[in-house]
Amino acid sequence: SQEKLKSVKTNAMSPKITVELLRQLRQAMKNSKYITEPIQAYIIPSGDAHQSEYIAPCDCRREFICGFNGSAGTAIVTEQHAALWTDGRYFLQASQQMDNNWTLMKMGLKETPSQEDWLVSILPENSKVGVDPWIIAADQWKNMSKALSSAGHSLVAVQDNLIDTIWEDRPAPPSTKLITLGLKYTGLTWQDKVTALRGKMAERKISWFVVTALDEIAWLFNLRGSDIEYNPVFFAYAIIGISNIKLFVDSKRLLDPAVQEHLELDSPSKPELTIQCFPYESVYTELQAVCAALAPKEKMWICDKASCALTQVIPKSHRSVIPYTPLCLAKAVKNPTEIQAMKMAHIKDAVALCELFAWLEKEIPKGTVTEISVADKAEELRSQQRDFVGLSFPTISSVGPNGAIIHYRPLPETNRTLSLNEVYLIDSGAQYLDGTTDVTRTVHFGTPTDYEKECFTYVLKGHIAVSAAVFPNGTKGHLLDSFARAALWDSGLDYLHGTGHGVGCFLNVHEGPCGISYKTFADEPLEAGMIVSDEPGYYEDGSFGIRIENVVLVIPAKTKYNYRNRGSLTFEPLTLVPIQLKMINTDLLTQKEHDWVNDYHKKCRETIGAELERQGRKEALDWLIRETQPIV
Amino acid sequence: SQEKLKSVKTNAMSPKITVELLRQLRQAMKNSKYITEPIQAYIIPSGDAHQSEYIAPCDCRREFICGFNGSAGTAIVTEQHAALWTDGRYFLQASQQMDNNWTLMKMGLKETPSQEDWLVSILPENSKVGVDPWIIAADQWKNMSKALSSAGHSLVAVQDNLIDTIWEDRPAPPSTKLITLGLKYTGLTWQDKVTALRGKMAERKISWFVVTALDEIAWLFNLRGSDIEYNPVFFAYAIIGISNIKLFVDSKRLLDPAVQEHLELDSPSKPELTIQCFPYESVYTELQAVCAALAPKEKMWICDKASCALTQVIPKSHRSVIPYTPLCLAKAVKNPTEIQAMKMAHIKDAVALCELFAWLEKEIPKGTVTEISVADKAEELRSQQRDFVGLSFPTISSVGPNGAIIHYRPLPETNRTLSLNEVYLIDSGAQYLDGTTDVTRTVHFGTPTDYEKECFTYVLKGHIAVSAAVFPNGTKGHLLDSFARAALWDSGLDYLHGTGHGVGCFLNVHEGPCGISYKTFADEPLEAGMIVSDEPGYYEDGSFGIRIENVVLVIPAKTKYNYRNRGSLTFEPLTLVPIQLKMINTDLLTQKEHDWVNDYHKKCRETIGAELERQGRKEALDWLIRETQPIV
Repeated sequence: SQEKLKSVKTNAMSPKITVELLRQLRQAMKNSKYITEPIQAYIIPSGDAHQSEYIAPCDCRREFICGFNGSAGTAIVTEQHAALWTDGRYFLQASQQMDNNWTLMKMGLKETPSQEDWLVSILPENSKVGVDPWIIAADQWKNMSKALSSAGHSLVAVQDNLIDTIWEDRPAPPSTKLITLGLKYTGLTWQDKVTALRGKMAERKISWFVVTALDEIAWLFNLRGSDIEYNPVFFAYAIIGISNIKLFVDSKRLLDPAVQEHLELDSPSKPELTIQCFPYESVYTELQAVCAALAPKEKMWICDKASCALTQVIPKSHRSVIPYTPLCLAKAVKNPTEIQAMKMAHIKDAVALCELFAWLEKEIPKGTVTEISVADKAEELRSQQRDFVGLSFPTISSVGPNGAIIHYRPLPETNRTLSLNEVYLIDSGAQYLDGTTDVTRTVHFGTPTDYEKECFTYVLKGHIAVSAAVFPNGTKGHLLDSFARAALWDSGLDYLHGTGHGVGCFLNVHEGPCGISYKTFADEPLEAGMIVSDEPGYYEDGSFGIRIENVVLVIPAKTKYNYRNRGSLTFEPLTLVPIQLKMINTDLLTQKEHDWVNDYHKKCRETIGAELERQGRKEALDWLIRETQPIV
Repeated sequence: SQEKLKSVKTNAMSPKITVELLRQLRQAMKNSKYITEPIQAYIIPSGDAHQSEYIAPCDCRREFICGFNGSAGTAIVTEQHAALWTDGRYFLQASQQMDNNWTLMKMGLKETPSQEDWLVSILPENSKVGVDPWIIAADQWKNMSKALSSAGHSLVAVQDNLIDTIWEDRPAPPSTKLITLGLKYTGLTWQDKVTALRGKMAERKISWFVVTALDEIAWLFNLRGSDIEYNPVFFAYAIIGISNIKLFVDSKRLLDPAVQEHLELDSPSKPELTIQCFPYESVYTELQAVCAALAPKEKMWICDKASCALTQVIPKSHRSVIPYTPLCLAKAVKNPTEIQAMKMAHIKDAVALCELFAWLEKEIPKGTVTEISVADKAEELRSQQRDFVGLSFPTISSVGPNGAIIHYRPLPETNRTLSLNEVYLIDSGAQYLDGTTDVTRTVHFGTPTDYEKECFTYVLKGHIAVSAAVFPNGTKGHLLDSFARAALWDSGLDYLHGTGHGVGCFLNVHEGPCGISYKTFADEPLEAGMIVSDEPGYYEDGSFGIRIENVVLVIPAKTKYNYRNRGSLTFEPLTLVPIQLKMINTDLLTQKEHDWVNDYHKKCRETIGAELERQGRKEALDWLIRETQPIV
């Protein structure tokens, strides 16, 4: 899956009528019930309080006020104006979903002002601009505040979210049942993880750590929830001290005896492993209390993506802001149990996909299979597998020209029928108790054109170049990105997205801190046990899209020499789904690539074949055997 | 050449005796003649006032005070202590060159304090730390000042350089004869360049630009000097306004009628192209005068590497600090005349090297050829070529284990004799009026071992992978670095330096803003007309070193397709010196690499062969023809 693919729910819909909502919001902006002095502008960011990529319905405040439901965008409402900033992916969609009370600010175009510049250009002198400090990151607050101050205005924190005050039928914050994960899935108890974390804290002389990312909390406590669609996380905060564990979560969730036992709430094994539970909302006051009791030189970690509200509770002299937390790093390097579990999840996922493709071959000639029906069928087949929990992201199921829309998601208005004449791309994945999957295959059910095969083969060569790359320990993922593009570049082609992202273990399908991208960021070096996707593509606008995606595990590589004893790494594919041979122009493959394809298919046949046999899925097994014939 | 290779003048020498010098410096630190209040510490950075990579003898102040003459290092002297910070390349050399009054601070080791931390740990309360503001960059000043202030100390600018006050036989600042370059070499008059620069300034609403980098001033005015060894530059500043040109240079240099005419000092063609000349030293007061007359919204460009002294003259509200100046970018993209001139320089350079290798083949069996004598012979042969000016950097001439020292420079104490049994590496280059060269070849005059050939072939594969790479317009150089390493990585090998640097046209052999490195920096995308080096290597400590370096020109590439009309780029080698076939294990080459070698050698034979013929250099021509036989 691509980050770009987050929920485009429609391309054709009527705009939301916002006259009355804007009137109410502007009243709230002057209402002394919420603010001591009127504010002249109110900023509505699109995130939640936990820097989540996907958000719960109760947090879709920007969509509520303007109608635009893309994954990225910030709304600002002043006394006279209402404007929404979003990027090129969403220009069309936003213009269709918003009524004419809203101005669309097209980010990335030269003439579009930044939020700061726009505010400064239209605000009356000495204005106050409000924002909910819980849903703006500390560094964003700082930048905005600085820009406003230097123009004579000020940024103020409005504690009551003003959208919530006018949102009558706002969904309740979710509080789904918690799932406890045993050692069989996690390899380490939460007590082990807390102890290891404290080791890292001691190394850096840190006495407290405020955990705000939902997947870090879920991973640390070996708990999962379903508060956010596709992401098995639950709303919580944690504050970990050298001898304290404070967990902030809706107390109803802790009534479950399984959870009580898992967390040893009644009978902790050791005093320093006693979890103190607090209501979710009390994190602010409790953090204040912890900070008030800090000794002069004590330091507290918090992530630079944490909310302004929480970050500012920590006095500057005690605050150590970090780009990646030690939990983010620990979570990224999977332990042997997690690796085994991820492998199992990928085997089950491959079984479902083999069945899907065998079914498609039979059904497509009937002319009744659509993008949506394939997505539904894929979900049904996955759900038959043991420990299935749900999808890991919305399925991208796209025929012909729809395949060229990288973040496409089929909707009734756009739904196309699969045929023998067009390329079909499916990017999908699931959550199982034992792991998270994410796989893309591009196939043709008739006869692909020479050009389609040529492009597919370049993408395959890029996929193999990354998958088979050998590189020294300490190499950062972005140094591998060009390997995925070299074959496309040679022919003047390219794709405008990154090549890979970290993948969680029954957690978020996109996770940090590593990735493979031409964009260089402060990524951490790849190390054995990390799991990332390898997904180059090629997109011909109006015609077709190609992407070949496997989830791959970083493993030690055996090399002939070992310069400075650094050791080397390579990748092992966890995804074991055949790559359609019909789409390959084998003349374009080197011997090494040729062998890679045959080795990969041999492994698919052996591993998935055995499981299909075990599950008695005969038709899918026949399909697998046919699709994994060696190429000569 | 590698950046690392800057002047290691010796490995075996006695330390400089510094007792008396330190006593004098400490007196100066209290002398009210230079400072109003005594300072408790004095920082001696290693640079000059122009962020130069190589410096003139009069600027070697850090070497003067401590004896250490490596290219990188900062000395700090307090009332009780004297310490020098340098990096791993220089630990041994620095410890040998400094007496026991000095503490060596080994940068990169965990236990080594930063300069700031060390100062804070040893200074008495409320101390003053002095530094010459002309040789510290503005951002370095800011960081140091902040660290000291937060510990209750202060950083103060000492206008008189205290080293200069005690340096009795300090060399005079150089003021060499200026060379004027006509259109035949430059392609553009200085008037054209000033006009183009003003266009860039107008685009960004900039009214003044303070030019501090010596190569930018030399390029802008089509002048060259020889104030700094290897770099054909001269000490100067320039302040360019929309209708003013202020040049700050030793006035004696302008008495030369050729320079007067070139700069149109007597009869400028247009008022806005009139150069006002000022003494070099008056840049400070003149900049103050310009700043005093600025209108409220006027902005002035200055590079972020400029000195603190000049940067701080510009009031913050008028200051626009930029990482790369428009001159740096304009200079990097060579125009057709410069490209033609660079090609000619590389042909002459190749002639000299072909002669050198032919001579070596005859002379080595006599057992009298040493690293130093080859370097001298190479210089002699180059000097016979038309428009030769000098070397572009100190020649690296290294046999066997010396080749593994990346920044090696042969000295009488280390000088080895070339033989039929060891690998020989020579990295050398010259300045000609028409261009700058930089080439490395690694050869064996007897029979190389299989392992030496294997390593050489991996390096060659990396060299070819970069040289033959096709990539979209807009690609940054760092995205190509892994191509140079892939073959080495596959076998567990690597090299610990970048792959390429920008090369000037009869200017500095290392220039920004582009390069090819695993270190990502804010480099500008490659574009047609840029010239960089392509120089992967492999170094086996204690045994041998391999590097294959060509200077290559970025050119448009013809590709089968043209995604989004972005266009593609590739490289054309300017260096045309045979790569020794004896060192290649041809079994390891792909067909494409095989063809590249033959095509390259065909071009060497045709282009250099014709010039050798024209110059009547028969022996070298025979050698060239033999060394460029196609491999089968």
